[in-house]
Amino acid sequence: KINSERLWNSIMEMARIGPGIAGGNNRQTVTDEDSEARHLFQDWCTQAGGTMGVDDMGTMFARFEGTDPDALPVYVGSHLDTQPTGGKYDGVLGVLAGLEIIRSMRDLGIKTRRPIVVTNWTNEEGTRFAPAMLASGVFAGVLERDWAYARVDAQGKRFGDELERIGWKGDEPVGARKMHAFFELHIEQGPILEAEGKQVGVVTHGQGLRWIECTVTGKGQHTGSTPMYMRRNAGRGLARVTELVHEIALKHQPNAAGAIGQIDVYPNSRNIIPEKAVFTIDFRSHVLETLEAMVAELDARAPGLCADIGVKFSSELVGFFDPPAFDETLVGRVRDAAERLGYSHMDIISGAGHDACWINRLYPTTMVMCPCVDGLSHNEAEEIFPEWAEAGANVLMHAVLETAEV
Amino acid sequence: KINSERLWNSIMEMARIGPGIAGGNNRQTVTDEDSEARHLFQDWCTQAGGTMGVDDMGTMFARFEGTDPDALPVYVGSHLDTQPTGGKYDGVLGVLAGLEIIRSMRDLGIKTRRPIVVTNWTNEEGTRFAPAMLASGVFAGVLERDWAYARVDAQGKRFGDELERIGWKGDEPVGARKMHAFFELHIEQGPILEAEGKQVGVVTHGQGLRWIECTVTGKGQHTGSTPMYMRRNAGRGLARVTELVHEIALKHQPNAAGAIGQIDVYPNSRNIIPEKAVFTIDFRSHVLETLEAMVAELDARAPGLCADIGVKFSSELVGFFDPPAFDETLVGRVRDAAERLGYSHMDIISGAGHDACWINRLYPTTMVMCPCVDGLSHNEAEEIFPEWAEAGANVLMHAVLETAEV
Ligand SMILES: NC(=O)NCCC(=O)O
Ligand SMILES: NC(=O)NCCC(=O)O
Repeated sequence: KINSERLWNSIMEMARIGPGIAGGNNRQTVTDEDSEARHLFQDWCTQAGGTMGVDDMGTMFARFEGTDPDALPVYVGSHLDTQPTGGKYDGVLGVLAGLEIIRSMRDLGIKTRRPIVVTNWTNEEGTRFAPAMLASGVFAGVLERDWAYARVDAQGKRFGDELERIGWKGDEPVGARKMHAFFELHIEQGPILEAEGKQVGVVTHGQGLRWIECTVTGKGQHTGSTPMYMRRNAGRGLARVTELVHEIALKHQPNAAGAIGQIDVYPNSRNIIPEKAVFTIDFRSHVLETLEAMVAELDARAPGLCADIGVKFSSELVGFFDPPAFDETLVGRVRDAAERLGYSHMDIISGAGHDACWINRLYPTTMVMCPCVDGLSHNEAEEIFPEWAEAGANVLMHAVLETAEV
Repeated sequence: KINSERLWNSIMEMARIGPGIAGGNNRQTVTDEDSEARHLFQDWCTQAGGTMGVDDMGTMFARFEGTDPDALPVYVGSHLDTQPTGGKYDGVLGVLAGLEIIRSMRDLGIKTRRPIVVTNWTNEEGTRFAPAMLASGVFAGVLERDWAYARVDAQGKRFGDELERIGWKGDEPVGARKMHAFFELHIEQGPILEAEGKQVGVVTHGQGLRWIECTVTGKGQHTGSTPMYMRRNAGRGLARVTELVHEIALKHQPNAAGAIGQIDVYPNSRNIIPEKAVFTIDFRSHVLETLEAMVAELDARAPGLCADIGVKFSSELVGFFDPPAFDETLVGRVRDAAERLGYSHMDIISGAGHDACWINRLYPTTMVMCPCVDGLSHNEAEEIFPEWAEAGANVLMHAVLETAEV
């Protein structure tokens, strides 16, 4: 079993870097704070006997040798970047639980045949630079590296330039590594495990995702002196599409979700009818046909709902992945480990996207889920209990050790 | 008659200060650009023989003596500040037409008994610091000077500090001046005069205004992993209130207008359900009862529409004025001048708020309106024709000279 107190203390120490304003974190990808977090993680890995490799997307791979240096390694990890108003556990738990496995193996004198590589994927969150899971997407060959470099943030800065600026663009070509398997422990970011009273989630599938950036174009006119019948109010287009997205997601219950999280209107002045509204729809389902049906319904109805009020609707796909089904053998090992360790558990579908979703396209992959209080995540108030973290990390350790061949 | 070419050239010269990105202007109140515009205006006034007074709200009063130094002066003017994406004429036409009257009087050797004071009111637009017509509101005793100083912009800067920083906080206590009358020439900012083919609008009334800042509070949760039935999406509250505002304004046609121009959602991340939406409603009517009925209907219905979807609605009045009825004698002089000069004209209600609306509470006041192309204003593409500016300025001159007693 892992050392629960050490794991918790490491999580708390990491949380001091890039503090938020309400108890959580603002440690967005490829910022100075991200760099500081990477240095701390690197120091810890070196102290634990690892050697660090960094690829040209900035992803960190801390390798700990097994008895057979030629065996394909087992990878375990998640991400250290956070949302602008993020919690202390989202991503961090998975990276530091990977490290804790290594530390506990040393304490307990355990050796595996295969090397174990603890991984920190760059830009999982995708808030500063869309899309999410950027580095693992490039690693999996789904996204292009140079296209990723050219992603810009709200200040117009390029991802590639920022990665270079913070000093974490490595030499290793992204995707060059081969894996025997990949494991990711992550908080659920939803309310199901807590509601069902389970300590561990055995993740069998993930939801697929479509991020659709929409632009509604109207006319910027004076709110007071433009007669009502002459208006082309882009804000009303936003309102109609907001309700449409909700309606479409409801139609496919319980296997779908959808909302608009990011909204900017222009020129954003109190007495000017919005000329333009730019916003992103986030659609999810673990059923590919459902995901595609949701997008098709949006495409079919949104332009007309907008045209009816004299505004123009256009859209562009800015993020996507299809629903993953995780490796049955690895899923079985996670389930068996939870059972063996005496933890209450249930099979679950990951509501959020994770680096594991991309890696699953190349190598046998699965996930372990940890409950989180009130299902709250992507919020500074995100919270978990040390016992939950311990249970998840122990299940992760058992499944990883079995796969790495103790 | 005024010198139309000189008026036009002055407008174009002023437009070089604080250029926009699309042919218009971004010369927001109490910025460095505003200061530069003030210096240019001051230089022109001094060259034309005026003496400049500045009050402690930064409003500029260029006084040109008549034959009787003890007579109460006739004031004429408007504002030189612009929207962030504003046009070249909104406000500027009224200030520079005032100056052009003085210049033409010198050319033509005309003297009045009363002094004429050409005025540039500070912060008419209210975009950077709400509310609009800030300095004239304080002058009229409706707003408090120290409250005005404490208004903050989006960067947290205070109006009073910025006024001091740009060097235009004068010594004169705001509101100390007495006026015989106030005249304001302004572009219509709406489509009516152009549609009716009239060169001049005789402004009999103005619309009143209510700016209501609304906050919808929900819960910031992960869009993918929060089940649809557990959501409290503040963005949906915004959507419902957007349509409610439109519905309320439509109900009172043709005597009302309403829209939401400024919207900010938090934390504004693609995969987070909006936790909070903050937005401002702009309601207008020239009938006070209608204006009050609109606000009452919002208060009665918005909280329930939001509660129905689990979010909380609250609101605060951040700007207001009641519909003004302008001085009948001055309105008659404007109408007679248009008739005498042979311009096509019609009586009109001002859709926008103007400094004249506040000054009307203290002294006999009226306005002259100039058509603008396609009714477009608060938009860099705002346009007028030189002939329209000429007609408006000539009518203004005749009404001012009659009132100042030639
Ligand atoms: N886990 C997580 O929040 N990842 C970001 C991608 C997503 O929104 O699902
Ligand atoms: N004229 C003008 O746009 N003034 C600002 C106040 C308003 O929105 O009516």
